[in-house]
Amino acid sequence: EIPHNEKLLSLKYESLDYDNSENQLFLEEERRINHAAFRTVEIKRWVICAMIGILTGLVACFIDIVVENLAGLKYRVVKDNIDKFTAKGGLSFSLLLWATLNASVVMVGSLIVAFIEPVAAGSGIPQIKCYLNGVKIPHVVRLKTLVIKVCGVILSVVGGLAVGKEGPMIHSGSVIAAGISQGRSTSLKRDFKIFEYFRRDTEKRDFVSAGAAAGVSAAFGAPVGVLTPGCISFQFFASMISTFTLNSVLSVYHGNAWDLSSPGLINFGRFDSEVGTGVPHLFLSHIPGGILGALFNALNYWLTMFRIRYIHRPCLQVVEAMLVAAVTATVGFVMIYCSRDCQPIQGSSVAYPLQLFCADGEYNSMATAFFNTPEKSVVNLFHDPPGSYNPMTLGMFTLMYFFLACWTYGLTVSAGVFIPSLLIGAAWGRLFGISLSYLTKGSIWADPGKYALMGAAAQLGGIVRMTLSLTVIMMEATGNVTYGFPIMLVLMTAKIVGDYFVEGLYDMHIQLQSVPFLHWEAPVTSHSLTAREVMSTPVTCLRRIERVGTVVDILSDTSSNHNGFPVVESNPDTTQVAGLRGLILRSQLIVLLKHKVFVERANLSVVQRRLKLKDFRDAYPRFPPIQSIHVSQDERECMIDLSEFMNPSPYTVPQEASLPRVFKLFRALGLRHLVVVDNRNEVVGMVTRKDLARYRLGKEGLEELSLAQT
Amino acid sequence: EIPHNEKLLSLKYESLDYDNSENQLFLEEERRINHAAFRTVEIKRWVICAMIGILTGLVACFIDIVVENLAGLKYRVVKDNIDKFTAKGGLSFSLLLWATLNASVVMVGSLIVAFIEPVAAGSGIPQIKCYLNGVKIPHVVRLKTLVIKVCGVILSVVGGLAVGKEGPMIHSGSVIAAGISQGRSTSLKRDFKIFEYFRRDTEKRDFVSAGAAAGVSAAFGAPVGVLTPGCISFQFFASMISTFTLNSVLSVYHGNAWDLSSPGLINFGRFDSEVGTGVPHLFLSHIPGGILGALFNALNYWLTMFRIRYIHRPCLQVVEAMLVAAVTATVGFVMIYCSRDCQPIQGSSVAYPLQLFCADGEYNSMATAFFNTPEKSVVNLFHDPPGSYNPMTLGMFTLMYFFLACWTYGLTVSAGVFIPSLLIGAAWGRLFGISLSYLTKGSIWADPGKYALMGAAAQLGGIVRMTLSLTVIMMEATGNVTYGFPIMLVLMTAKIVGDYFVEGLYDMHIQLQSVPFLHWEAPVTSHSLTAREVMSTPVTCLRRIERVGTVVDILSDTSSNHNGFPVVESNPDTTQVAGLRGLILRSQLIVLLKHKVFVERANLSVVQRRLKLKDFRDAYPRFPPIQSIHVSQDERECMIDLSEFMNPSPYTVPQEASLPRVFKLFRALGLRHLVVVDNRNEVVGMVTRKDLARYRLGKEGLEELSLAQT
Repeated sequence: EIPHNEKLLSLKYESLDYDNSENQLFLEEERRINHAAFRTVEIKRWVICAMIGILTGLVACFIDIVVENLAGLKYRVVKDNIDKFTAKGGLSFSLLLWATLNASVVMVGSLIVAFIEPVAAGSGIPQIKCYLNGVKIPHVVRLKTLVIKVCGVILSVVGGLAVGKEGPMIHSGSVIAAGISQGRSTSLKRDFKIFEYFRRDTEKRDFVSAGAAAGVSAAFGAPVGVLTPGCISFQFFASMISTFTLNSVLSVYHGNAWDLSSPGLINFGRFDSEVGTGVPHLFLSHIPGGILGALFNALNYWLTMFRIRYIHRPCLQVVEAMLVAAVTATVGFVMIYCSRDCQPIQGSSVAYPLQLFCADGEYNSMATAFFNTPEKSVVNLFHDPPGSYNPMTLGMFTLMYFFLACWTYGLTVSAGVFIPSLLIGAAWGRLFGISLSYLTKGSIWADPGKYALMGAAAQLGGIVRMTLSLTVIMMEATGNVTYGFPIMLVLMTAKIVGDYFVEGLYDMHIQLQSVPFLHWEAPVTSHSLTAREVMSTPVTCLRRIERVGTVVDILSDTSSNHNGFPVVESNPDTTQVAGLRGLILRSQLIVLLKHKVFVERANLSVVQRRLKLKDFRDAYPRFPPIQSIHVSQDERECMIDLSEFMNPSPYTVPQEASLPRVFKLFRALGLRHLVVVDNRNEVVGMVTRKDLARYRLGKEGLEELSLAQT
Repeated sequence: EIPHNEKLLSLKYESLDYDNSENQLFLEEERRINHAAFRTVEIKRWVICAMIGILTGLVACFIDIVVENLAGLKYRVVKDNIDKFTAKGGLSFSLLLWATLNASVVMVGSLIVAFIEPVAAGSGIPQIKCYLNGVKIPHVVRLKTLVIKVCGVILSVVGGLAVGKEGPMIHSGSVIAAGISQGRSTSLKRDFKIFEYFRRDTEKRDFVSAGAAAGVSAAFGAPVGVLTPGCISFQFFASMISTFTLNSVLSVYHGNAWDLSSPGLINFGRFDSEVGTGVPHLFLSHIPGGILGALFNALNYWLTMFRIRYIHRPCLQVVEAMLVAAVTATVGFVMIYCSRDCQPIQGSSVAYPLQLFCADGEYNSMATAFFNTPEKSVVNLFHDPPGSYNPMTLGMFTLMYFFLACWTYGLTVSAGVFIPSLLIGAAWGRLFGISLSYLTKGSIWADPGKYALMGAAAQLGGIVRMTLSLTVIMMEATGNVTYGFPIMLVLMTAKIVGDYFVEGLYDMHIQLQSVPFLHWEAPVTSHSLTAREVMSTPVTCLRRIERVGTVVDILSDTSSNHNGFPVVESNPDTTQVAGLRGLILRSQLIVLLKHKVFVERANLSVVQRRLKLKDFRDAYPRFPPIQSIHVSQDERECMIDLSEFMNPSPYTVPQEASLPRVFKLFRALGLRHLVVVDNRNEVVGMVTRKDLARYRLGKEGLEELSLAQT
């Protein structure tokens, strides 16, 4: 009964308006502001970005330190138990303890997400991508979401799931940015009466993009936020400060102040410049990366469809998360138990060695792979000297971890997919390097750690299909520009190969939620479409001086539910052309009605302005619904003068404009409404996000999605 | 008699048109192209970017290798001579030899620039900045310019001027990009008949920005081209390939293939993460950086005004360049002669040691500073252990080099200002570090090399006033993210302090050339201006079906010299509204006239299309002047149907739109013409680049520049 979401477009998501500044009140305010005041606003922007950076860095520190301590605690409990039972037999008790421990930690993590704030599930990257694209996902940048996200991430990682804590930092940074820049929190019901100038979609978007960049850099130590639109200087500034904060606090915490060597939550460690003759073969890693990435996505797609259909009740979701946690622990335990890969403990940098059945002074290498945080396992795979790993161990580990990670993504827990992907890739990359060296009898002397790096890049690229941002992130995390080019090639090929089979993981989930997402460019074969064909028509227009009753009726009409209304000349009964005069938003009309800015029909000339820009700002971003505003029968007969509040020069296109041109205008300016006019400047239609998002490039060329009111 | 250029705007520069795609012919072609063909175009784009990267990398290698060999040769000749005369006296002969050698090399370098291609002078960064901004500087992306630029840079560096070879790489990359992407060279009169799809301003701009990014990364090993607009993926790809090419070729040339350790022409060497307690004091370096940068710019401003007034003849320019070369050699010689700063030769990594009056086994440290290429001196100042430099030597060196570099910038030679700025900054930064350590009696233990790094950043930032791109460049060149944050802070403060006194060097030179440069944002206090006030009016309009004679007359009118003409309804004699129907460009009209796409007045209905999009592309970008097209008296009476070739949906704004909104539309879409219409869609004015560039933010708020036909 639930439709196949892939070809649907949901209408439940509202759009953000990045070009809502040009209304009369705003213009008047801007005109009044002088040079010095503009400078103050600019300084405030930088201060906010600095605060975003600092707070994001601190949140990352908090997560890192808490995870480290809890994971250490869990290791000691389990290790003591295993050591006890290894001697006297009965290791199944240890398994039970381990599985129960993990499942209960994950249960808490899943409970808070499922019952308190479901939007905190997953990495949050698709949601932030949508927000920056201009789609308002409910609750996505609220303080409550941040709290749940942070606690959820800690619990999932400590619970031993195949997840990372890096992806969620991007979401955390965004929430911090949205909160600080508005100078108030609706969750806490506190308004600090500062930064009121920034209470607009455009400004908020710019700060959120800076917050996302700060999150990226706190996670990976790569201070470049190419993933997002918005002002790049602010992004860069916030991300620099966030990585510096994280670096300083962690260096103090680890007891070597001023040795700033951990710029991100994960650092791959520096690779040397000597790439070895293996270089051409390093590039071979792309092909399996793309294919394995596509396989991951395809499996996850089926799983997600299954979840949409059968596991949509919160308690079921919690049970599934617990099941995955228990299975992860069991798989880990069985593999450790069966593995006979013992390595000498001396000279290795293992943090959590487990002896089990190994001789004294040796440790079980499979156990470290499961007990370590995934971050540490990745770094070990990159840097351990050749011969540290048994190919059999690696192969088994890759296989099991692949399925566990795939099963885990999409659970109702806060967690990222970056690190598991890197880990899978690093494992098979190293395996690939070892095999190659074996096959060529050692004539290829590139370090297997470098194959692990390329494998990790390929796997991650094959799953998320980003190239530019991932290249920067991976390059910064390795600290060596030399690897930038091979990493980029690997990522590009993984994307091309992967795209041949199935979409990227984030795009897939965005599509499964039927979000009206707009790419940067119009679909390539859309030149034959014109504005006339894509626009919505007829459009509900308002007159410049309109009857209050008409306005209320139009706003109350749930069947149309428009958000922007063209304003036309007042007397359409005469033969004169009813040309376009402006555009007014639903939110502005609501504020006008709420403050009852009405005049009697008799004395139309004495319109008294009683509203200030502040009234609009205070209502932002949660405008009351029309049903909550009471308008009496007498008031319905009053008039309302829209020309004082409307946008007097909305963007327009002629009907003949091609879809790519409409698209470009829409995207370049961040529009929400684009009015289509004819040769005489009369309104003939309106283009909104959903009109454009409906056209998508499918396998067989342009396809048109259906609309769903879900 | 020559006006004070600062408040002028020249009309001689044409604008580029980044939104000229939407004309009927183009639309029809795009409609015909299917999905597969679009994919081919996309693949071609990547291929072109790869070629741009490879060629830019190779050019950088060529410059590097030739300079290294010639400089080595010069060193040996001078050293032998000095060694000979040190023993038997008469060092003035050595001075003469050195000065003559330098002056003659610089003479050749200056001659080719002054007489063959004056646009190759300087670093080329301001010119490329203008090009990417949308202003066509004549000859700036021609093959001839590239050849002169490359030879000129080599000769200036070998001639011992206080210049770098990095800045010009950006220009070189841009020319390579423009050449390859068009698939032909007008300098060589060869058309390879490939890449014809890209013969448009938009596409060419995107490739030029990729070329500039490739140039940046070849110069600094920093594969991020944040300096420029355009498609960031292409920029990144091209720059990755360019740095990889350079790295590979140089590693093979230096005999250690696959040890890819020189990603750029200059590498600062890796700094360790231990920043030391000096950190807070490192930040002190910004203040002098801003002030010294401003001083540099102010001196250079006076010098440039002097040059504009008195040294505009090519032979005088060559003489000045020779004079500077001779003075540089003399100053160097005198300082070496007077210096008694001897350092032990063992354990140091000096490439060109000069013994002079030092004891055996020692070398003169001042001499190395002058004999080394400036790049090596910078790296030495960063990494030499504490105590390698005598404070007196450093102080004298800073002072002299400051004035020499300032005198050199603006000479008629190809040369960059990046490296000299870094060198000045590194010298005083190190001096600052030494003094600080001396004053605090060693309680501050930051390495003086780190002060040198901060000083270099501050000085460069104070001169060119870039923050974002410089942070990335410096961070990549040091190979350590940790220094990103202090570098950024230093650069930002240097910019703020410097801006208080005088503008950045590049902006200053752009302004002195009266280029109609548009910043990204409208001046902040321009909200009170509307389109009505900034537009040019009245506008010469054409009718949809127009008389050939009228078109020829309008195009020949040198007093107006418009480049775009609104097309209105054909019969303006009736009372009907003459609404806007489209826009046609001068270049399109020229092609129509040249191919004589006329019809007799009698049979207006049988308009025969004889022109293809190819005819427009073949004429791009050098359309013939109207004077070269002969139209007979009979033909003047024919009609021409513009509606088949015009842009049917030009962007328009209402008269009430505010200047910031007009500005945003103009910049976001890369427009050249924006038609201003009234409520009935009738043309009332036109906004072009010069209308917007006239408004500038001065010291006392908004100021309006005058127009000059120079």
